[in-house]
Amino acid sequence: MTHTQVGIVGAGPAGMLVAVLLRRAGVDCVVVEQRDREYVEQRSRGGTVEHRVVDLLRRHDLAGGLLRTGAVEDRIEFRMAGRRYPLRYDPIAQGRTHYIYPQQFLVRDLVEAYLADGGELRFETPARAVTGIAGDSPRIEVESAAGGSEVIECDVVVGTDGEYGVARRTIPPAALDCYEHQYEYAWLAVLAQAPPSSDCVINSIHESGSCVHVRRTPEISRFYLQCPRDDTTASWPDERIWKEVRQRLALDEPWTLHEGPILSTGMVRMRSLVCAPMRHGSLFLAGDAAHVVPPVGGKGFNVALADAEELALGLIERFTAADERRLDAYSDTRLQRIWRIQEFVHWMMDLVNTPGLGTPAAPFLHRVQMARLERVLASEAYGAAFLEDYIGWW
Amino acid sequence: MTHTQVGIVGAGPAGMLVAVLLRRAGVDCVVVEQRDREYVEQRSRGGTVEHRVVDLLRRHDLAGGLLRTGAVEDRIEFRMAGRRYPLRYDPIAQGRTHYIYPQQFLVRDLVEAYLADGGELRFETPARAVTGIAGDSPRIEVESAAGGSEVIECDVVVGTDGEYGVARRTIPPAALDCYEHQYEYAWLAVLAQAPPSSDCVINSIHESGSCVHVRRTPEISRFYLQCPRDDTTASWPDERIWKEVRQRLALDEPWTLHEGPILSTGMVRMRSLVCAPMRHGSLFLAGDAAHVVPPVGGKGFNVALADAEELALGLIERFTAADERRLDAYSDTRLQRIWRIQEFVHWMMDLVNTPGLGTPAAPFLHRVQMARLERVLASEAYGAAFLEDYIGWW
Repeated sequence: MTHTQVGIVGAGPAGMLVAVLLRRAGVDCVVVEQRDREYVEQRSRGGTVEHRVVDLLRRHDLAGGLLRTGAVEDRIEFRMAGRRYPLRYDPIAQGRTHYIYPQQFLVRDLVEAYLADGGELRFETPARAVTGIAGDSPRIEVESAAGGSEVIECDVVVGTDGEYGVARRTIPPAALDCYEHQYEYAWLAVLAQAPPSSDCVINSIHESGSCVHVRRTPEISRFYLQCPRDDTTASWPDERIWKEVRQRLALDEPWTLHEGPILSTGMVRMRSLVCAPMRHGSLFLAGDAAHVVPPVGGKGFNVALADAEELALGLIERFTAADERRLDAYSDTRLQRIWRIQEFVHWMMDLVNTPGLGTPAAPFLHRVQMARLERVLASEAYGAAFLEDYIGWW
Repeated sequence: MTHTQVGIVGAGPAGMLVAVLLRRAGVDCVVVEQRDREYVEQRSRGGTVEHRVVDLLRRHDLAGGLLRTGAVEDRIEFRMAGRRYPLRYDPIAQGRTHYIYPQQFLVRDLVEAYLADGGELRFETPARAVTGIAGDSPRIEVESAAGGSEVIECDVVVGTDGEYGVARRTIPPAALDCYEHQYEYAWLAVLAQAPPSSDCVINSIHESGSCVHVRRTPEISRFYLQCPRDDTTASWPDERIWKEVRQRLALDEPWTLHEGPILSTGMVRMRSLVCAPMRHGSLFLAGDAAHVVPPVGGKGFNVALADAEELALGLIERFTAADERRLDAYSDTRLQRIWRIQEFVHWMMDLVNTPGLGTPAAPFLHRVQMARLERVLASEAYGAAFLEDYIGWW
């Protein structure tokens, strides 16, 4: 049986950031991850890093890769009725911006940093169960590489194993309030082998549904196409994807859409989930294990990293200074932030999606959507309120 | 048969403002109103006059009564979970504010001003039909006081006869786009013989539904109680009204709710309607005849007055200078404003109403609502974006 101070379930961005920070502070930890290293370092998810999270990574000297190869954006472009409406970040943002840096690149950076510090990270080691969280010696039961099982005895367990992981399911349902919401929207998420067609995010609002374009790397582009909630990827052959992208991004002026082979498609049903509190006894949840936010605005990745920093700092104070105050406040501190982000995303959903498609309310709601965009563009205050949450500097 | 340049159907605030401005500019007009003068001058509707509309009335020297007896507000008070959250207008508003001045008082002022200028205003004269609007000599067919009918021949007809009036119904349906939306909310509107319990508007958000308190005069208060959409006034005996008001406005600190006899109750189903364009041939619509906005934020009265000024100025340029440009732009000019207000009210609806009551989404949405309020209070930019539309200075 292994013993460690902090057992971390899941080597995504939240788990790896907790691990790196603990290791550096001399807190003993072990990370277990069901997938192999290659999978984890290539798993394509979010890619927009908020201003405050760039600062966070800088503070911990973990922003090297991001600053070297990430792309900086200076505006967001909206499109409506064949016209462009760029919203420049400056002067409102006073130079603050977000970076485009794929999540898997950051995970790779964090894995590298952790291993370079001599951290223990077990890939292909699924956690079967977390037990004893009500007491002060919780255990992670894992499948060992040999096929047998092993127990990792911990002082604290960190659950960063995502929405469907084992950690949250360990908490007795009566001890957890889960707030859930299904939005009416779904997005077809498309990854294409095509150079970006813009050096900033494009959000096009269109009466047949919105289209979002985000660059990932100089060779790879992401597109999101709004579609009915019960739609499936099967109804989106490549030809139809490009036809809809062309139509929804169309401008009255000349511009070039770079097309290319489609690498993957997925159907994202917009859903929010907040579980509270984020702690039960000696188990702490962070990132998707505790809350899910729809991809609009690219917040999920950022919230996970901000959770992870707060949790790591609390754990470090506990284990190195026997001071539990920050750790005890962890759940409340983060939940206040998480609800603000849920509110922002809830608002932004109706800005970048065409609401009520196929219902009698659609014509009214589409005009309200256009008026909202016009107000964001016309009102300095409303534009600033949007940008401070979108870029993330509040 | 009477002939006039501008026939105005309806002596509400929009119709009377058009009439006063035309009369002063020497444009000949006749106002017909189905009700008697007493009814019109006592019809209780809105009562919040936006900053920009106060300016409008001042510009035309019509703000005397309002400035003399209207009440100025310096903040809005939100309540949540037993606590007060005042949002002060200054310094953001830089001294700008709205006034509380009941709509019927302004109608009384306008009727008085119009009659003092020798204007022709026929009470108890219902318009049965408006005809010939495709050409340039439209007619208003009215019931005369004697019981017979009479025709008023006009160059232009102004329809300010409200949502259910005859004017809009005159326009061929194919020539009018009507955008309609039913909100999930309803408010029980209560008028009570009780001194106001606060010198500013109170919006209390509560998990069982919101409660709004607005003063009307030193002796009269208004309360709005959110209730299910299909609720009726019959299920709200006075005792239940006060019980719910007490509960929803409850504070953890001492405060006094002034109760008193209930003068009237009404059920307001939240609904939006925008009809476009606001002109058909020689018929122009203004106020509720063209669009309806739910009472949240008290915008309907203000939009009607702003429509009326723009329309009157266009008509004056046409009749006194043979310049039709402003009149031709009337519908587009106003519709842009009207959609912005619809968007604001749409947003504010979910701030001051508890969403999804009785549905599985309610717990999530109520937390998002609380987070929205916290963001309005915490973010200077978001607070300013709210106030510029709420007070109305953009």
